[in-house]
Amino acid sequence: MHFTRLWEEITDLVDRALDSFLPGAEEFPRTIHEAMRYSVFAGGKRIRPLLLILTTKLFSEEWRRSLPVACALELIHTYSLIHDDLPAMDNDDYRRGKPTAHRLFGEAMAILAGDALLTLAFALLCGQEDQNNEYYTAYRREVPPAVKLQIIGEMAGASGVRGMIAGQVLDLEAEGQTVAVEMLNDINARKTGALIVAAVRSGALLGEAPAGEMQLLSDYASLLGRGFQIVDDLLDVEGNEKKMGKQKGMDKKRNKATVVSLYGVAEAKKLRDNLYAEALAELFPFGKKADALRKLTRFVFYRDY
Amino acid sequence: MHFTRLWEEITDLVDRALDSFLPGAEEFPRTIHEAMRYSVFAGGKRIRPLLLILTTKLFSEEWRRSLPVACALELIHTYSLIHDDLPAMDNDDYRRGKPTAHRLFGEAMAILAGDALLTLAFALLCGQEDQNNEYYTAYRREVPPAVKLQIIGEMAGASGVRGMIAGQVLDLEAEGQTVAVEMLNDINARKTGALIVAAVRSGALLGEAPAGEMQLLSDYASLLGRGFQIVDDLLDVEGNEKKMGKQKGMDKKRNKATVVSLYGVAEAKKLRDNLYAEALAELFPFGKKADALRKLTRFVFYRDY
Repeated sequence: MHFTRLWEEITDLVDRALDSFLPGAEEFPRTIHEAMRYSVFAGGKRIRPLLLILTTKLFSEEWRRSLPVACALELIHTYSLIHDDLPAMDNDDYRRGKPTAHRLFGEAMAILAGDALLTLAFALLCGQEDQNNEYYTAYRREVPPAVKLQIIGEMAGASGVRGMIAGQVLDLEAEGQTVAVEMLNDINARKTGALIVAAVRSGALLGEAPAGEMQLLSDYASLLGRGFQIVDDLLDVEGNEKKMGKQKGMDKKRNKATVVSLYGVAEAKKLRDNLYAEALAELFPFGKKADALRKLTRFVFYRDY
Repeated sequence: MHFTRLWEEITDLVDRALDSFLPGAEEFPRTIHEAMRYSVFAGGKRIRPLLLILTTKLFSEEWRRSLPVACALELIHTYSLIHDDLPAMDNDDYRRGKPTAHRLFGEAMAILAGDALLTLAFALLCGQEDQNNEYYTAYRREVPPAVKLQIIGEMAGASGVRGMIAGQVLDLEAEGQTVAVEMLNDINARKTGALIVAAVRSGALLGEAPAGEMQLLSDYASLLGRGFQIVDDLLDVEGNEKKMGKQKGMDKKRNKATVVSLYGVAEAKKLRDNLYAEALAELFPFGKKADALRKLTRFVFYRDY
């Protein structure tokens, strides 16, 4: 329960910081701000912000400085979901039990809300604006300019055309095609893994981690990213629709290659268990101080939503 | 002709730098890289890069350091055109005489190519990658981290939900509506003006301009931005379709409020002439060294495409 309290404390603070960084829903022009807020507060699990902050906490108790970066991550993640859900892409009507942004606000507004969230992420990361925001002060004052630039590099790289966007392109192109397992791993590493790796690496940069530990954590994050995707694919077959807030069986319906469709449920679970063990092994050298991160790892690998 | 040579030298260098920063068209996954390159090299006038570099040149001959920022500007500008042209937005089939990105590559790829260009702009600005690129070295080595962060702030602010994106939202919402002139000016300031102001301000930051001159140049840039939009609106009524590479009369067809539709052609031209004089007045204190910028200003206000 001690972890649950920490977890809640962090996600609560992230939500309050997100609320403070987003333009007010009443602010002119309203529609786009409503669309941005709707998607950001549509029930995300905040796994990336938690990962980032728990990684910083491995090295430093000064983790409030990580809040704006945690928010930027969540903004980038949300933008990617909004654009992925569009009719021209995956054409999803529901996510987390709620209508997707384009269903509610129209396609144009959904595209623009996504664009705006991505841009806001970089505005936050550069540390230039919103001078009086209490959630921003530690980042602005304590994180050196060179580290801010490194973090922007991590985020732009992970979400760019060699990372997340390439993943989405390959995913769209692979629909209905036979996909080899190497290709599938590559798609998933880019589509899901890259931003998770960027979360952990940025957390380590903010904690001023030494180079050796940075490498361990990068390896940990890749394993976690692979596990994350396999669990998503398993949930699409076995999950509880009510708890997930979305329809099962979409991968099959779309004829989408996943680890589950290639190997079957039993093998996919074995692979997940192996990846879990490998991920924990990377955390081993950190001893007890990585317990919160272990708990989060367990959640990612064995979640039911 | 001396200006024309300088102009060509700059745009030529910007094009070569853009080519070097964009992923190769043959690079995997190809489609998205082709779409990005197609739109970036579809015949843009490179006005924003020129503005930025000529502004740096007011203060320093070391303007090669401005090249990556000039490219980032053009990437952001191109992303905004791709997304504005989408069926859900302005639904344009042609731009500069060529099919728009979504006509050629499909809607999904156009959305993703826009996303990728925006993200690449910030990747460039943070100065972290592409260490061996000759067009990048001066920016990476000579521009202090704090200035890089300021420039990222200018760009993210100008293209974000309080700048360009708000402009596009308001523009979409205003279609077919009666719009007061104050609102119209506000829309144009955000949609067109903000990125032009960011170009000039970033150019001044890169030239280490003193605060007083920064203010003059910001004012100059707002006037230029207003003029730019009025000329666009005039061309939509009076322009040469062949030279422009697009159909005239689209504003009227869309029932779109513009300065021309509110005041008529003759008044719009008077307003343009006044703005031109005011813009030049802001450049007056810079004397002869602003001659190239004056020439560009004249082009922006009296261009026929």
